[in-house]
Amino acid sequence: MTDYDTVSADVEHEEEIPEDHPRYQDLLTRHRIETGVEKGITHLQGMHAEGRGSAFDYLLGEETIPSADAAERAAAAHLLLADRPVLSINGNVAALVPGEMVELAAATGADLEVNLFNRTPERIEAIAEHLREHGAATVKGLEADARIPNLDHQRGKVDEDGIYAADVVLVPLEDGDRAEALDEMGKTEIVIDLNPLSRSPRVADVPIVDNIIRAVPNITEHARDLADADEDELRGIIDDFDQERALEEAEVRIRNGF
Amino acid sequence: MTDYDTVSADVEHEEEIPEDHPRYQDLLTRHRIETGVEKGITHLQGMHAEGRGSAFDYLLGEETIPSADAAERAAAAHLLLADRPVLSINGNVAALVPGEMVELAAATGADLEVNLFNRTPERIEAIAEHLREHGAATVKGLEADARIPNLDHQRGKVDEDGIYAADVVLVPLEDGDRAEALDEMGKTEIVIDLNPLSRSPRVADVPIVDNIIRAVPNITEHARDLADADEDELRGIIDDFDQERALEEAEVRIRNGF
Repeated sequence: MTDYDTVSADVEHEEEIPEDHPRYQDLLTRHRIETGVEKGITHLQGMHAEGRGSAFDYLLGEETIPSADAAERAAAAHLLLADRPVLSINGNVAALVPGEMVELAAATGADLEVNLFNRTPERIEAIAEHLREHGAATVKGLEADARIPNLDHQRGKVDEDGIYAADVVLVPLEDGDRAEALDEMGKTEIVIDLNPLSRSPRVADVPIVDNIIRAVPNITEHARDLADADEDELRGIIDDFDQERALEEAEVRIRNGF
Repeated sequence: MTDYDTVSADVEHEEEIPEDHPRYQDLLTRHRIETGVEKGITHLQGMHAEGRGSAFDYLLGEETIPSADAAERAAAAHLLLADRPVLSINGNVAALVPGEMVELAAATGADLEVNLFNRTPERIEAIAEHLREHGAATVKGLEADARIPNLDHQRGKVDEDGIYAADVVLVPLEDGDRAEALDEMGKTEIVIDLNPLSRSPRVADVPIVDNIIRAVPNITEHARDLADADEDELRGIIDDFDQERALEEAEVRIRNGF
């Protein structure tokens, strides 16, 4: 938690962070979240959650490990095969990878839906606007005309023609309760989370233990690579992916990498 | 980073967090830092640093391990033996343990000095006032009439009759550059930090790998216990403490505890 503070907090624009800095990704991530808080996109507690994630990323070696790459390829296959894929966006996701999520949506034909733990009309609108500025044509989550069962009223709000009806949902940086509730609805769930022991990746069909900044562009790359693949090939990729083994490999890496 | 979000962010007062909650300390810590940010005491990046620390604390098992307790007893002995002990306070320390630092200062005859990475007159004054509200009679760091060598101008600012002249300094949650610069000044340095691999605890004479919320009251308890000890006993405690072994034991615990 200390070496963190050795780079000035006074960077105004992310271009000022030197790309060859040994902690470039880390500083970039922190800067984007901080900007998100200032813009009203990210809840203050998102800064805390991001700090927590950054410690796990540090232990992982701040790179996409092979099992995470395999999970990202399986995620791309799921999204391409889906009838109604949806990418769920919260305050941290919007702050960290707005343009990258728009690109992934385009590469897979998925919808973008804003879904917040601390839901206020102002934050919902700020995030939707932020996504539009990054190229999103349509942003769901503003109607909120359906409910995820077994979650309290505010947190269960979703769009009926969005997450409610989706068959495959990407839920990055999601809390355990919502991840479980979506799982119970029978959805194919793809979770991005840096702690392999937390509940969200453990209920996911595809747990991606990786930094979202690396994971999302890599899923997009796999999706583009698989754009012409037939259904059999996509199903083969999905069948080859072993959820338990991916979690185990991440745990071993965190232990030994330290 | 996810299960974190499953407790409402809307707690107004820390008394609302149930003491029997399995993540009580964690929620309390996060709440205090959040309040610190809102009061202008803690920099926004302090929330991130705290999140990072919380991941290491989670891996440690959120308890004071035996080697940390030994470090805390050695820290108490150092502070009691010192001619001019000073406790350094930054924005996170002020938010997390203001009253606990005032008590430790009283139990060891140490001075309190505000020292900030992102120094502004407003934050310095807000923190000094916050410490006074928690019982501090005198708060140093406002004069800033001396400089720590080998640090840039703003960050090196200290009081000449405070940290500059101190023989023993407690620097909790301190960045690596400042910890190294204080070490080079020949001070006996006590560092509290949850990452045993970061630079600050590695340059410290007494590295305490523990959550500051547990560490500070425990140093105070040891100091009270040792109030009547003679110099030989205190020196014996200091000599028995093995800095390298304490760091190793924390590292092993983080690996195996995970």
